[in-house]
Amino acid sequence: MIGAESLVRTLLASGVDTCFANPGTSEMHFVAALDRAPGMRCVLGLFEGVVAGAADGYARMTGKAAVTLFHCGPGLGNGIAYLHNAKRAQSPIVNVVGDQATYHAPLDPPLASDVEGLARPVSQWVKKVTRVEDLGSGAAEAVQAAYAPPGGNATLILPSDVSWNDGGVPAAPLPKPKRASVDSAAIAEAARVLRSGEPAVLMLAGPGVQDDGLKVAHRIGAATGARIMCQTFNARIARGRGRPVIEIVPYPVDDAVDLLKGVKHVVGAGTGLPVAFFAYPGKPGIMTPKDTALHVLARPDQDVKGALDRLADELGCPDVPLPEHRSNAIPGDGPVTVEGAGATLAALVPDDTIIVDEGITLRGPFFQATKHAARHDWLQVPGGAIGGGLPLATGAAIGAPGRRVIALQADGSAMYTVQALWTQARENLDVTTVLLSNRKYAILVHELKQVGAVAGKTARDLFELDRPEIDWLSMARSMGVEAARADTLSRFADLLSHANGRRGPFLIELRL
Amino acid sequence: MIGAESLVRTLLASGVDTCFANPGTSEMHFVAALDRAPGMRCVLGLFEGVVAGAADGYARMTGKAAVTLFHCGPGLGNGIAYLHNAKRAQSPIVNVVGDQATYHAPLDPPLASDVEGLARPVSQWVKKVTRVEDLGSGAAEAVQAAYAPPGGNATLILPSDVSWNDGGVPAAPLPKPKRASVDSAAIAEAARVLRSGEPAVLMLAGPGVQDDGLKVAHRIGAATGARIMCQTFNARIARGRGRPVIEIVPYPVDDAVDLLKGVKHVVGAGTGLPVAFFAYPGKPGIMTPKDTALHVLARPDQDVKGALDRLADELGCPDVPLPEHRSNAIPGDGPVTVEGAGATLAALVPDDTIIVDEGITLRGPFFQATKHAARHDWLQVPGGAIGGGLPLATGAAIGAPGRRVIALQADGSAMYTVQALWTQARENLDVTTVLLSNRKYAILVHELKQVGAVAGKTARDLFELDRPEIDWLSMARSMGVEAARADTLSRFADLLSHANGRRGPFLIELRL
Repeated sequence: MIGAESLVRTLLASGVDTCFANPGTSEMHFVAALDRAPGMRCVLGLFEGVVAGAADGYARMTGKAAVTLFHCGPGLGNGIAYLHNAKRAQSPIVNVVGDQATYHAPLDPPLASDVEGLARPVSQWVKKVTRVEDLGSGAAEAVQAAYAPPGGNATLILPSDVSWNDGGVPAAPLPKPKRASVDSAAIAEAARVLRSGEPAVLMLAGPGVQDDGLKVAHRIGAATGARIMCQTFNARIARGRGRPVIEIVPYPVDDAVDLLKGVKHVVGAGTGLPVAFFAYPGKPGIMTPKDTALHVLARPDQDVKGALDRLADELGCPDVPLPEHRSNAIPGDGPVTVEGAGATLAALVPDDTIIVDEGITLRGPFFQATKHAARHDWLQVPGGAIGGGLPLATGAAIGAPGRRVIALQADGSAMYTVQALWTQARENLDVTTVLLSNRKYAILVHELKQVGAVAGKTARDLFELDRPEIDWLSMARSMGVEAARADTLSRFADLLSHANGRRGPFLIELRL
Repeated sequence: MIGAESLVRTLLASGVDTCFANPGTSEMHFVAALDRAPGMRCVLGLFEGVVAGAADGYARMTGKAAVTLFHCGPGLGNGIAYLHNAKRAQSPIVNVVGDQATYHAPLDPPLASDVEGLARPVSQWVKKVTRVEDLGSGAAEAVQAAYAPPGGNATLILPSDVSWNDGGVPAAPLPKPKRASVDSAAIAEAARVLRSGEPAVLMLAGPGVQDDGLKVAHRIGAATGARIMCQTFNARIARGRGRPVIEIVPYPVDDAVDLLKGVKHVVGAGTGLPVAFFAYPGKPGIMTPKDTALHVLARPDQDVKGALDRLADELGCPDVPLPEHRSNAIPGDGPVTVEGAGATLAALVPDDTIIVDEGITLRGPFFQATKHAARHDWLQVPGGAIGGGLPLATGAAIGAPGRRVIALQADGSAMYTVQALWTQARENLDVTTVLLSNRKYAILVHELKQVGAVAGKTARDLFELDRPEIDWLSMARSMGVEAARADTLSRFADLLSHANGRRGPFLIELRL
């Protein structure tokens, strides 16, 4: 058996059955092996950023690692931004990077590069396999390493001769590492703080903002008066009807500082004190008051959900009814406003929707409006690498068939990875992209002001995307995605109902 | 003066007056400083791969370093593939990567990453400046380092507080490093070999395949009988009427081996023995015969052109008339074939055109046909990172205003960096993109065969781009680039004449 086949068989045996790929020559034997060891679903991306971001979205919805396929250092390079996001989202991913044959690399052919050097900054595990007989066991290790808490990128570098040589040995799956329990002292300390009656925030992340974590946090909050909050950007928040509402730390530092005024204690469940996305002259880096104490209930790699359960027991928190708010949002009418579009979305979002949020400056009203909408998961970009949205939506749809994905996508960021639309069309994915078209990098206008800089003409020119305007309908259609423009809120409502009521992708350009 | 202004002023004083940018928050003060220190042309790319590839194209046409602007590790990550190509093309580039403020980075905000680790594999110089008073001198060093022979990426990492703090000191330009002269022994050895009469190849790269280098190589060839060749992929080859014709090492290993059969000596001017792009089972990695001896006339970082001059003197090569071939190509007629399209291009290419070649499997006939066409420069992708073509054409047009750029662009590779079309429209660049649409990754079909693998359905599916087909006219128009389709050769000829006769970008979809 050649190495590549041992790799595919080991991945399948380890439960990895989805491959996001942009292959090149060095991956040809892997690709050929897919037909000899059936069971791997292959999804093609026309740019590696799509591959990386989709694997992240898939992991967030399934909790499972997909395998990605990248071609040499430059192929991996094109994926790095969205592997960075995946790392921050704690998404398990097995990256296979094909590379020069072991004996050919010393000749320094054009594509030779330091693949390990490129992989390390985004990976929690990197290994280059140099002997065919080690490939199966290396693959099993890679899967295990991707799941090593809190979850992240495991990168296996695969020289082409190791892939094609005979002598591959499929390996049995290795045990999936579990998150470690927290010390009882951490539980006791958190309980003491929350009992004190001093103003406290239970700050949640990771499993803490998913359905079960949030429910127990809600009980703790109800029993102790602690505020239940999460960081500004999260991998996946459970939201909507029947779920506790969680406060989110605002992105603008001044707003966050205001909201957190007077907080004496932060109990961190999978996270710590809220840190500003960037430093700004004269503004604090940590947005809680200077005298706020951090009490670590659970580190990001520990059993966050278990720690919350134990804390609730320790505090004797009774069961509380879940909020049964119903959104009174109705589809909007008249000219497009972000607030009206938010209300329209809230009124029309189907049950169990996955909302992928790369709305950037336009996010707020959509997030607010959907608080009591139908039950949904809200996916963000915790790593801040811009352009992650469309690939994330693509992978989420692959990971959760039968659920509608709505991507709230700002126009500037959409352009980084617009090729994702093609994959959506090819796989006929149920993704409704709401393209928020304001024809500028509005975030940069905001940021320029925040850092206290003054823009002249050259600077302002770099923020404007209206010369030329991007024609989003042509863009979507060029890649096989149907599209229409909403110039009014009632048109937006009609298009949203239409898009959500059919199979396959659709893009709505919402002109703002 | 704030740091950012000292940076811009130093760059300008050092002759760096063009900036390819995709800025983010950490670069806001640099952006604002552009208006306080006028003279920097700013070109916006909507994706960092466009920025990197354009800086490469600009350097190839001007010999000058542009400055790029990337946002943190992920922004740099998105540029890495095309910075790899630039490195292999020996293109001087100053990369400025904005990063977290020095005091904020330890808080590990979402975008924090190991920027130095990511930069090193593609850079010949990396420096993180941590004190505002060192930024001016750091910038001068960066420019000098970008020009350090053979030329490449110098990456300056700029924490945002270093950018906004007061105390910046503009620095005077540092001397531009010169390529070192080769030892006389190397000249003597090369002369001895070429006088021997044994079958020899003078293998050229870098300055050796530009106009002056090629002319002296031609004299050497005429006097000694040595074959004048270059590697498969080159930064820039001088071609067309009035220029010596150079043989190129074919990409397919078997063809290269055939062509190089019987060669006893390779005299390397800026390069060495021809190395296969990839290893293939049972095929050699070096494509000359086993007993071929390499004689290094000049290493890539040495004075290649000077060495060729001295070698010609040593050999007493007389002046020879330059070939005055005239292409007898006439625009084709009838159904589209690659050969017919090549002849059409050869007939219609304007004088001093820049041809950017990412034609991949379709390149050959175009390259052959244009041998005796009007005078032109032929730009390739020496690093092999796919998708470099459209950005390269964009940057070449910025670097050589008044010259027509024709981009021979395969469809699969076009999709990696298709956002470059928007920058072409925005800057109204004279770029004619000939989009070679075969709706597949034809190179992978070829490579699969070469590595001896057998494709099943899954594998074949990963090579086909026809589900859905990309509508290239809609794609181009969505970003403000006019476009038309050529279904016949006469239509291709008409469109080519039309596109080349007007200002601004145009895309011709050539259906194959």
